[in-house]
Amino acid sequence: MQQRAETTRRSVLEAAAHLFEERGYAGTSISDISALSGRTSGAIYFHYNGKESLALAVVEEHFATWPQLIDRYATGSEPALDRLVRLSYAVAEAFRDDVVVRAGARLWAERKAIDAPLPTPFVAWLDTVTALLRQARSGGELAPHVDPEAAAHGLVCAFFGLHTVSDALDGRRRITDHLGRLWLFLLPALQAHPAPAALLARVRDEGRAAVRGGALG
Amino acid sequence: MQQRAETTRRSVLEAAAHLFEERGYAGTSISDISALSGRTSGAIYFHYNGKESLALAVVEEHFATWPQLIDRYATGSEPALDRLVRLSYAVAEAFRDDVVVRAGARLWAERKAIDAPLPTPFVAWLDTVTALLRQARSGGELAPHVDPEAAAHGLVCAFFGLHTVSDALDGRRRITDHLGRLWLFLLPALQAHPAPAALLARVRDEGRAAVRGGALG
Repeated sequence: MQQRAETTRRSVLEAAAHLFEERGYAGTSISDISALSGRTSGAIYFHYNGKESLALAVVEEHFATWPQLIDRYATGSEPALDRLVRLSYAVAEAFRDDVVVRAGARLWAERKAIDAPLPTPFVAWLDTVTALLRQARSGGELAPHVDPEAAAHGLVCAFFGLHTVSDALDGRRRITDHLGRLWLFLLPALQAHPAPAALLARVRDEGRAAVRGGALG
Repeated sequence: MQQRAETTRRSVLEAAAHLFEERGYAGTSISDISALSGRTSGAIYFHYNGKESLALAVVEEHFATWPQLIDRYATGSEPALDRLVRLSYAVAEAFRDDVVVRAGARLWAERKAIDAPLPTPFVAWLDTVTALLRQARSGGELAPHVDPEAAAHGLVCAFFGLHTVSDALDGRRRITDHLGRLWLFLLPALQAHPAPAALLARVRDEGRAAVRGGALG
């Protein structure tokens, strides 16, 4: 019973995410979600109080994606800048491939039109990136003029902008290409000994296979 | 008569911008716009076909802000990077101070929920920034490794992200401070002879008074 309830809840949440992503908050109704999920509106209201509560659940699920990813890259024997770049690719792939992440981002962009308090994403990202840049400073990877906190602010702006620009120009299909170009531009502003192409090659090729296998460093 | 019609049209457009900015597209009705502008809905429908057409007019007016600004900074005897930085401040101030610009940005963020085709902003900005960076290259201002087109993409992402982050964190009140920090981070990635603080001092202090007085260079 527990299992079946969870299956229903999940299928309702995913149908809602598909519709919110495609049609936005105002363009989606409970009866659309019922039709797409194949669940009655009674079943939907058993799990969620209504559309606001479903939107909030999608945004919360979107936000819940990041701590796991961040944990994977926050520490390790690999250079901190390499881990930061890997993290940015993992985020870009989540945006490209995960409908709940995309729907959460769209709902967040429409947040002023939604009658539920949505969390603010940037503070946690600023903290995460600042912490990685401080590690890079300790490891001698960062150019002396770089202030970790100011640089973290610039990076968070650039990545958030990248997602918006890529969504508007090509529906995020080329997001990892755009991300690579962005790093080629930004890494020389960060690195003590600029070698952006070498870092990207490590991270994009053998590096990513290695990180999946747990063989960091 | 012509003049009076134009006054009515403008007051309707500005009331609509205030409401779209505050409540979003879905949260604004023609009767709200009528109440705020003090014009009858008959007068509103005389100028606009309805809410979609008003939203489109606000977004078009937002977009019409940029060519004038761009013209002011696109050429001149001043170094191209100085003009690019000045342009970015002028854009930030427009976002901070002009309700039509802010409303246009919000409507654009909600564009998928609006039943009218809205223009895409990034292409023109990419062209403008690329052209300024090519001038910087000709003037010897740009570091040799910088590719103007790739850097323009990075800058447009960063500035667009800055507006979103600043809107979410402090309602854009501190946008020019944030912009200064962003340039301190980005200019070392661009300049042939990095001196970001000196450039910002020129642009923010005497420089801006001079540009208003027409005494460029």
